[in-house]
Amino acid sequence: MRGVMMYGPGDVRTEEREDPKILEPTDAILRVTATCVCGSDLWPYRGAEPLHATPEAMGHEYVGVVDEIGAEVGNVSVGDFVVGSFVASDNTCEICQAGYQSRCIHQVMMGTIGTQAELARIPLADGTLVKTPGEPSADLIPSLLAASDVLGTGWYGAVAAEAGPGRTIAVVGDGAVGLSAVLAANRLGAERIIVFSRHPARQALAREFGATDILEERGEEGAARVVELTGGYGAHGVVEAVGTQESMWQAIRATRPGGFVGYVGVSHGVELEGLDLFFASVHLHGGPAPVRRFLPELVQLIWDRTIDPGKVFDLTLPLDEAAEGYRAMDERRATKVLLTP
Amino acid sequence: MRGVMMYGPGDVRTEEREDPKILEPTDAILRVTATCVCGSDLWPYRGAEPLHATPEAMGHEYVGVVDEIGAEVGNVSVGDFVVGSFVASDNTCEICQAGYQSRCIHQVMMGTIGTQAELARIPLADGTLVKTPGEPSADLIPSLLAASDVLGTGWYGAVAAEAGPGRTIAVVGDGAVGLSAVLAANRLGAERIIVFSRHPARQALAREFGATDILEERGEEGAARVVELTGGYGAHGVVEAVGTQESMWQAIRATRPGGFVGYVGVSHGVELEGLDLFFASVHLHGGPAPVRRFLPELVQLIWDRTIDPGKVFDLTLPLDEAAEGYRAMDERRATKVLLTP
Repeated sequence: MRGVMMYGPGDVRTEEREDPKILEPTDAILRVTATCVCGSDLWPYRGAEPLHATPEAMGHEYVGVVDEIGAEVGNVSVGDFVVGSFVASDNTCEICQAGYQSRCIHQVMMGTIGTQAELARIPLADGTLVKTPGEPSADLIPSLLAASDVLGTGWYGAVAAEAGPGRTIAVVGDGAVGLSAVLAANRLGAERIIVFSRHPARQALAREFGATDILEERGEEGAARVVELTGGYGAHGVVEAVGTQESMWQAIRATRPGGFVGYVGVSHGVELEGLDLFFASVHLHGGPAPVRRFLPELVQLIWDRTIDPGKVFDLTLPLDEAAEGYRAMDERRATKVLLTP
Repeated sequence: MRGVMMYGPGDVRTEEREDPKILEPTDAILRVTATCVCGSDLWPYRGAEPLHATPEAMGHEYVGVVDEIGAEVGNVSVGDFVVGSFVASDNTCEICQAGYQSRCIHQVMMGTIGTQAELARIPLADGTLVKTPGEPSADLIPSLLAASDVLGTGWYGAVAAEAGPGRTIAVVGDGAVGLSAVLAANRLGAERIIVFSRHPARQALAREFGATDILEERGEEGAARVVELTGGYGAHGVVEAVGTQESMWQAIRATRPGGFVGYVGVSHGVELEGLDLFFASVHLHGGPAPVRRFLPELVQLIWDRTIDPGKVFDLTLPLDEAAEGYRAMDERRATKVLLTP
């Protein structure tokens, strides 16, 4: 099969890989209909994070059709169209049952498998995969794929930020996750949604997804603007969808005491000084999003065409042109790149 | 009047100070019935934190009788017995109304006033002070004084750790706040309460307050024991009541993914590495406790003799012997020292 491998910073190749096989009776093999490049894939691409192997199989987002199942798989059948999260989970342990499937005690990170490929092995298929109500029409594929990571992650950020009626929610980050968080905050009923963005196309999509205010300031200055816009108090909740020291403190400083910071940007070089955090008095919650918690609801909202999160994809390429997809995202020519095997 | 001043590390003196006066029409003057030494007073005493002035007026915990009121004070009258928190608050701003009175937009830290004295000015008296149902009998004074800070702080820690029925709660720290958190977790219905302590007298009081398990391990080892005791998952919630790097990570590591860390130990030298925190996937909430939120309920529980948090005081001294009180706490001969003006 064809699959995407990263050999080093800036060096992405689509090449022949061995077909995956059922290794455990709880595995399924998926024929990938669509996959994509994640903002987190850019960290090793930019040399800001080491590869886990050389070369490393890339990708952790996926939708597709079940091609084969292990002997113990009972919730999905060959031929089912399914969506899964970037973390395989049993969905039965106490952590999963509490809604934290991304930290399942049997978790398998899909990034270690690489779903930017024609086929992918899905561990713990019963717990991981969610069937769509039927065979989706082609125009629903991008939105279902978004649910696999960015939508689910933005949704989690908005839930962690306690977005809801009467609330003012700010979103730090105008990438696919940040934009998805705007959509989520809107859907969850937030009254006012403030987004930080300097990028015209992303500002436009943010407004389409429900943003009420766009700010171009950053860092302490950006946070101060949110405080100013909220009567001196700060936002009720802020979603952090970048992962840098500046963006984390921007999120914390934009939040009122007692408010909620939902942080979903994978941290890079972040150090939180304890006393500053102590006196910020916010709720801080985040980490790898338990997308599986939200998948059934998100799939239904997409199926019913209530939400259209697939709009975050602004470039679609064949899998063989993955390298161009990485380049486009690296250069911010594309927000999110969909790849079709 | 007599008041306690700190001149430098280890140098505490009770001496003559000028009587406080009404400065704002929202002030009250309190005749202090009882005050105490706080664990946080030990930081400058040990030279681990600079003084705010030389000498600095000490103390922020207090119960007593209203001696004088400003023109705009309406909720308390001269002669009322009252309890207040270590932060004066208006109790009307959006932050207060949301239950975060310790971060009121008009907050005044009582530590800047110094309540280890015969008299104390209480700013924002209407918002800050809570009347007891009547004149308390002498044996209730220690418990009412505990409500002013340590009980309210431990209570907040337990609430932030989401202590409740069916939950396993761990408490890091066996000082007065940690012990109060045990009492709170028990009162809030926690099923199992694990306390870290190596101090026999504190272990005994922890058990009396409702601890079910005592652990003598610390740091990563202590956290690992909690994970082991909870089927490999970690506690549902952990109260951090120390404020050091080791204790913070002990609390975070002892908490299951998706669980709750309530941190109330004032941070000293704590740096939280972002990626470690990201993958811990806990809820982190804390800071200076909004004691005022809980005071009416705590005063009633004490009045009804449902709880006896005053047991954390194991040494009572006249105000003039404050220096010995600081020494006893510094040397861990006393858990908490009550001072009577």
